[in-house]
Amino acid sequence: MSGTLSVVGLGPGPERWITPEAHEALEAATDLVGYRTYLARLAPKPGQRVHDSDNGDELMRARHALSLAREGAHVAVVSGGDPGVFAMAAAVFEAIELGPPELRALDVRVLPGVTAMLAAAARLGAPLGNDFCAINLSDNLKPWHVIERRLTLAAEADFAIALYNPASRARPEQVHRAFALLRAVRDAATVVVFAKAIGRPDEEVHVTTLGAADPGFADMRTLLLFGASTTRVLERPGRAPWVYTPRRVEDERA
Amino acid sequence: MSGTLSVVGLGPGPERWITPEAHEALEAATDLVGYRTYLARLAPKPGQRVHDSDNGDELMRARHALSLAREGAHVAVVSGGDPGVFAMAAAVFEAIELGPPELRALDVRVLPGVTAMLAAAARLGAPLGNDFCAINLSDNLKPWHVIERRLTLAAEADFAIALYNPASRARPEQVHRAFALLRAVRDAATVVVFAKAIGRPDEEVHVTTLGAADPGFADMRTLLLFGASTTRVLERPGRAPWVYTPRRVEDERA
Repeated sequence: MSGTLSVVGLGPGPERWITPEAHEALEAATDLVGYRTYLARLAPKPGQRVHDSDNGDELMRARHALSLAREGAHVAVVSGGDPGVFAMAAAVFEAIELGPPELRALDVRVLPGVTAMLAAAARLGAPLGNDFCAINLSDNLKPWHVIERRLTLAAEADFAIALYNPASRARPEQVHRAFALLRAVRDAATVVVFAKAIGRPDEEVHVTTLGAADPGFADMRTLLLFGASTTRVLERPGRAPWVYTPRRVEDERA
Repeated sequence: MSGTLSVVGLGPGPERWITPEAHEALEAATDLVGYRTYLARLAPKPGQRVHDSDNGDELMRARHALSLAREGAHVAVVSGGDPGVFAMAAAVFEAIELGPPELRALDVRVLPGVTAMLAAAARLGAPLGNDFCAINLSDNLKPWHVIERRLTLAAEADFAIALYNPASRARPEQVHRAFALLRAVRDAATVVVFAKAIGRPDEEVHVTTLGAADPGFADMRTLLLFGASTTRVLERPGRAPWVYTPRRVEDERA
């Protein structure tokens, strides 16, 4: 087996956030495998085979990529953002674990990228400048009560919280439940940011508070950020405010 | 004020992880400001002024950068990893908030990068493939009891946990306390990874368990990863194992 498989993160969208390493892997690939929307961002070279698919079964996509690599292909599995964060890398290793032992001899590499929360945070200032967590709100693959428990404990820990996949057409209600839950734990003044399509031409950023936010504003392309209790909004005349979380946490026991 | 300030993330080390946007900002800068170790990675262009400093007071460094920008310079504040994650971006906005109101009119941009935990995760497989959190173990700027509380709640939430700054010469004991605390909450079989100097020539990865780990192995250049209860180790003949956290969480109530 002399094939290879690279799991490549394209970042949230623009070319300027794709690492040189990711570029090289895309150049060197004989086969590109991925969700149609991500592959559409690329201009395949002559001779490169493109295997696109719907945004459905990631495990099936991973298996297809692995079987191409076993046949000797140099496969790039294309993912948005960073492939290790709620994206294709975990699906590839699941497929390896569930597949024949020979797959463990394959040359598989994951190439890191800029994940959505880092791009959104950079756009805003530094909302993730202190301790934070990332939660995938989709309950397609995990029970809702696990998500609720993690959200509640994260709120109690006073993490800044990045919520991936807050809403979709099939799951319009869960973001409302997430807000209800956070409103029970966190102060109404907690900073909330809806970051839509960051880095894309239709990018949109909406800075509000937990008390005032309309959860229905979140859609499939939104990353939701909840500040810690210390997160600050710096107003600027005529421009969108900056949002940051100071490195310092005061000792309230002292 | 026609100066600009960009807070630029160099990633964990190698050139292949620096985004094109970060490269451009470094090229366009008249002034480079940063911690000596990060600036040493760059080859300044003729005419570029370099303002290096010790790894001490980030707020002072941020103020210096802002004052250069106010004088009309195009400043790149250089940071390791992603500047928004336990790095220079928060210090810059702190300096703005504490400084004169004119600073809010400055053109300040944060350029996202590959943060250490994403690089370490990619090197290992996909340990951050499900919900996770990032905690800075340094108590230089926050009380230790806040760190302990966050660690305990994160362990109870069954997050994968990335620990930044687990140890230094001045803080050799805290990583032992963190392990003691996690051992009280999490199973001894929990996967633990010491990821040292990822992407550098002396990179080192050590995969072990919470029960067996020697916390003293962590140093200043280590990122510590604790798996969730679902995190898996895939052994490979003759090679370092892969570590990944499946996307799926079983319903233990069902």
